Amino acid sequence: MEKFRFLTAGESHGKCLTAIIEGLPANLDIDVDFINEELKRRQGGYGRGGRMQIESDTVEIMSGVRFGKTIGSPVTLVIKNRDFENWQNIMSANPKDITSDKAFTTYRPGHADYAGSVKYNQRDLRNILERSSARKTAIEVAVGAVAKLLLKQFGITASSKVLQIGNGKTEEEFHAEIDRAKAAGDTLGGKIEVTFENLPVGLGSYVHWDRTLDGRIAQAVMSVPAVKSVSIGNHHAYKMLGSEFHDEIFCEDGKITRKTNNAGGIEGGMSNGENIVVTAVMKPIPTLRKPLKSVDCITKEPTEAHFERSDTCAVEACAVVVESRIACVLANEILLKYGGDSIEELK
Amino acid sequence: MEKFRFLTAGESHGKCLTAIIEGLPANLDIDVDFINEELKRRQGGYGRGGRMQIESDTVEIMSGVRFGKTIGSPVTLVIKNRDFENWQNIMSANPKDITSDKAFTTYRPGHADYAGSVKYNQRDLRNILERSSARKTAIEVAVGAVAKLLLKQFGITASSKVLQIGNGKTEEEFHAEIDRAKAAGDTLGGKIEVTFENLPVGLGSYVHWDRTLDGRIAQAVMSVPAVKSVSIGNHHAYKMLGSEFHDEIFCEDGKITRKTNNAGGIEGGMSNGENIVVTAVMKPIPTLRKPLKSVDCITKEPTEAHFERSDTCAVEACAVVVESRIACVLANEILLKYGGDSIEELK
Amino acid sequence: MEKFRFLTAGESHGKCLTAIIEGLPANLDIDVDFINEELKRRQGGYGRGGRMQIESDTVEIMSGVRFGKTIGSPVTLVIKNRDFENWQNIMSANPKDITSDKAFTTYRPGHADYAGSVKYNQRDLRNILERSSARKTAIEVAVGAVAKLLLKQFGITASSKVLQIGNGKTEEEFHAEIDRAKAAGDTLGGKIEVTFENLPVGLGSYVHWDRTLDGRIAQAVMSVPAVKSVSIGNHHAYKMLGSEFHDEIFCEDGKITRKTNNAGGIEGGMSNGENIVVTAVMKPIPTLRKPLKSVDCITKEPTEAHFERSDTCAVEACAVVVESRIACVLANEILLKYGGDSIEELK
Amino acid sequence: MEKFRFLTAGESHGKCLTAIIEGLPANLDIDVDFINEELKRRQGGYGRGGRMQIESDTVEIMSGVRFGKTIGSPVTLVIKNRDFENWQNIMSANPKDITSDKAFTTYRPGHADYAGSVKYNQRDLRNILERSSARKTAIEVAVGAVAKLLLKQFGITASSKVLQIGNGKTEEEFHAEIDRAKAAGDTLGGKIEVTFENLPVGLGSYVHWDRTLDGRIAQAVMSVPAVKSVSIGNHHAYKMLGSEFHDEIFCEDGKITRKTNNAGGIEGGMSNGENIVVTAVMKPIPTLRKPLKSVDCITKEPTEAHFERSDTCAVEACAVVVESRIACVLANEILLKYGGDSIEELK
Repeated sequence: MEKFRFLTAGESHGKCLTAIIEGLPANLDIDVDFINEELKRRQGGYGRGGRMQIESDTVEIMSGVRFGKTIGSPVTLVIKNRDFENWQNIMSANPKDITSDKAFTTYRPGHADYAGSVKYNQRDLRNILERSSARKTAIEVAVGAVAKLLLKQFGITASSKVLQIGNGKTEEEFHAEIDRAKAAGDTLGGKIEVTFENLPVGLGSYVHWDRTLDGRIAQAVMSVPAVKSVSIGNHHAYKMLGSEFHDEIFCEDGKITRKTNNAGGIEGGMSNGENIVVTAVMKPIPTLRKPLKSVDCITKEPTEAHFERSDTCAVEACAVVVESRIACVLANEILLKYGGDSIEELK
Repeated sequence: MEKFRFLTAGESHGKCLTAIIEGLPANLDIDVDFINEELKRRQGGYGRGGRMQIESDTVEIMSGVRFGKTIGSPVTLVIKNRDFENWQNIMSANPKDITSDKAFTTYRPGHADYAGSVKYNQRDLRNILERSSARKTAIEVAVGAVAKLLLKQFGITASSKVLQIGNGKTEEEFHAEIDRAKAAGDTLGGKIEVTFENLPVGLGSYVHWDRTLDGRIAQAVMSVPAVKSVSIGNHHAYKMLGSEFHDEIFCEDGKITRKTNNAGGIEGGMSNGENIVVTAVMKPIPTLRKPLKSVDCITKEPTEAHFERSDTCAVEACAVVVESRIACVLANEILLKYGGDSIEELK
Repeated sequence: MEKFRFLTAGESHGKCLTAIIEGLPANLDIDVDFINEELKRRQGGYGRGGRMQIESDTVEIMSGVRFGKTIGSPVTLVIKNRDFENWQNIMSANPKDITSDKAFTTYRPGHADYAGSVKYNQRDLRNILERSSARKTAIEVAVGAVAKLLLKQFGITASSKVLQIGNGKTEEEFHAEIDRAKAAGDTLGGKIEVTFENLPVGLGSYVHWDRTLDGRIAQAVMSVPAVKSVSIGNHHAYKMLGSEFHDEIFCEDGKITRKTNNAGGIEGGMSNGENIVVTAVMKPIPTLRKPLKSVDCITKEPTEAHFERSDTCAVEACAVVVESRIACVLANEILLKYGGDSIEELK
Repeated sequence: MEKFRFLTAGESHGKCLTAIIEGLPANLDIDVDFINEELKRRQGGYGRGGRMQIESDTVEIMSGVRFGKTIGSPVTLVIKNRDFENWQNIMSANPKDITSDKAFTTYRPGHADYAGSVKYNQRDLRNILERSSARKTAIEVAVGAVAKLLLKQFGITASSKVLQIGNGKTEEEFHAEIDRAKAAGDTLGGKIEVTFENLPVGLGSYVHWDRTLDGRIAQAVMSVPAVKSVSIGNHHAYKMLGSEFHDEIFCEDGKITRKTNNAGGIEGGMSNGENIVVTAVMKPIPTLRKPLKSVDCITKEPTEAHFERSDTCAVEACAVVVESRIACVLANEILLKYGGDSIEELK
């Protein structure tokens, strides 16, 4: 049931991140500057560490676009890793480059290291952490930016904001919380809210569980590495009465209106024309300067989780990723709903 | 990527609910009594209305099972609607039975009525509400029960509990909250927690977003009609420090252990061997005796949302549905992980 | 990428065959008489054995249709097995009905028996043959009939004819070949041609291998139990020159026309507006009165393949099944191309 | 139901061809030389034109492999187009490079041009022909080579041969036919046979149409641009008697054996342990030096189909592509059957 389908690939310190998007209609304007701005948004935010400066991601289009417009064939996006020359021996695909040293053997709590090494039968945890890294969200943001370019054709726009970091609830407090965590060698997560405006009625469906729009959004958001919770609409649903929660329906000038949006824009698994409002919780970053207790994957001896240069808080970046992931879901629904193989036919 | 795949069908007052499950290994014991017990659990709980008595759902197996064991071919499950004879004219598939009266034309806030009628171009809202009804979760519970029978073969078990209803946090308080809402003609939702125990390490994967186990669980849970929020692990992730949240790793007798489970059993999109703990929020039931303001779908005149006999609170039932939905996700992952076409080969 | 998706279930001598179709637009007229006529076509043809009389299949609609029209929710089709009462102990789902005798243990050459029993770890071959039987094509024809009802809305029609049976190339010769085989206790296959007319340009796509229309048709046709070969367009492609084979393009009154259709209506993996012409080869029926040499699955001793009442030739039925299978592929492509959730919106 | 899934991208004269393969187990040896040899096989064969010299394809691995082994994460393969510098203005993704001249406007019979331009609403047929070109089969061969590396781990091997070209049935005759066609400015197709040896019993299934192995192979083979016909096993099935066609079953030393393989290794939609034998027909190449009559897509005036440097006959290359496509189907089935996330666990 996917019309907007894609695969992504790439390791954190590999040559590049790659995505292939299949299913875009022809004649969609691909604004590379917009994609790069989205990549920049992902790299920003208070509390980021040193790597963000190195990276400065930009996308290169390798296929599917001619003279600024899609031609119907699959679109390939590549983000080169600028730092690759420092990693080429460590990350080489060539069996001749293998060395006996340098295996990374401490499971980092909160990461994929332990389960990943069991699953894929690896003794060098680098073979797990390179792909499980949040680095891969860069290419997901690029894909999401293409989805947003499609949504724009229908007037649909996205925005997001941070609701909470630690116990802070205002920007000033966010900074104070982050500064305090950073000084302690610790990390923080937070809570964000993403809003999509100007949606048509009837994206998604109640007729089968795997077609519910809220279900698909929940999967997309929860798949973001650090996200542990997804909500649609008013957070207090669990303690409200039906008469308080449900959005009464009115009609003005022949148009259906609401005075509230506790449902967050989705009723019966479908967009109802109101703004789609999604809240997500990001857990604190699991790589801490203050080390966590752990175990060596080979010796099983106690040790402390390794520190790689990292961020104190990446909640703002997470919001951009969540936006991007939801944009992909909505782009797919738009394509399913309107059919058509070119932008002219879709609209 | 689905090995355990299924489709469900059926309207609330139609002849029956049907599911076809494709992909089960051969020689799995199908305990019909267990499926019926699960259906009974879904019908129970404090705060349910009159319909639950009428129904008393039981499943009939129409294919795929011989002498109590699967044979590899698709399994068909049917739950007959015992009340169908009272509805056969209203719900007839035969064009000759059409009548001009009885169209249902008031959009009910919180339901699929409005968006569904726009999407599917319907003027009689019964054509929407019959399928969008929570009735369809009965057959999803039956499918989930089959998934649980597969999980049992691997020692994996499920349980659930209610955490909150209204402002109540204990069973006694739940009942008081429900009684108060019922007296006021109002409804309530709540918060539930579902736990799966004894999982193998490495279900799901971080390698691609659509393979993350938490993402798949989130979709399955959020697709349940009344669910508005899904969380994995500790609810307070957004305000905890990294050093507080992440579950340190120890080794006892060569076995990896943890002292905490804030991650809720999932790290890096994979099961890590700890219990999987999922919290879901159910919104209050949208059908109230105390009517909500709405609009007629034909005349667009103001009106009040129709009352059909309903429940005050169905949070306990919702927990059973959520368990069932997660069981399907885990069954699929087990089949992907272990391969094999018969139970003997899987284990 | 499926919008018209379905699952089928049911054993040859089980209670019933069932299908659930998910993804149909609302307001499609479902003409049950047409479905039953298609089922009757499948049961006809010269050379059929006794069972066809017993069966006389008719479909019952269990969900998704109200007053003769789809409502957007999944459609359940059931064909009851009229002979089930004679089989209820043998085919019971209940573990209590198990008996020690009656296991079917001779592998029948040309059937699923051998590979199926290895795959699904079965010692009673009935557990394989019941589902691998061509009986399941009855419900596939019912699903195909629904697909045809959708295609009819776009003016697309199907027809088929037998090209060859044995060495016979005319109806008279077909009958003579069949009579001769029947007298010898032997069986025959044949070659059929199926044509779909009035297709829009641009179903399917060259942009990715799994979207080619010819690829999808080939899968659908080759999945029919007895089919061993599928061709699109002129059979002699392998020995023709490019200048002979390719269909030159003309324009009359602003409309693209061709004088030949060697491509069989598909160029570049897409419908090109000409008739789609598919040829399929059916192997001879593998159940013969004149027994084939085989082996007992338990003892591994030589034996002869068991004879169950069967047909001498079912090529005409096969043509109906092939039509039905292609209709499902085209219905899916129509839904993908035109989008829309109701017939009014699609057209 | 795909475990071995992939997307490919790239235009004939674009920067590169790209594939992402997702679902490979970890610790699979990736022999780049083998992939390059397969690419070379695709470029060979009697009757090829000038372009094959320019290309000399080699693959670069951009992700998913470290020190010669897969690590579980998606594998990216890239084949650079060596000729790109001559095409960079014509194929630029940048809107600033657009020019008013050079649009390609003659529909070429036998190509995607006409249907593609209608479908994707294009007036410059280059936007169609660049992706619909057989050039994209190069990256499909690279993907197939990776699939073959997986199959090798199970001892499964592939081979192919040409059965017929024009009226020629021996290599000597093939060359004479090709020489004659070339002299006449014409083209030829042919018939090939592909064999896979050493398969396990029970890949694919009869239980649902979309799981039949022959159906999946038929789709994969028919999706190859020039293929118009796919057969499994003995070509003469349509005129043979059941007693002649079906492969009798014997047992030697406890092992099931056959004396014939008319079924081509597939019974009941499953591999039966015999060699899988697939025949495919390739149509003649549609780009001829001797031009075909056609129409201009803008003016609709009669014209002649444009000649681009091309081949006279590419049947040997087609055989390599067909092998590759079938290898992908079998790799997927092996992964589904054996489960496991690392090579060690699979075997």
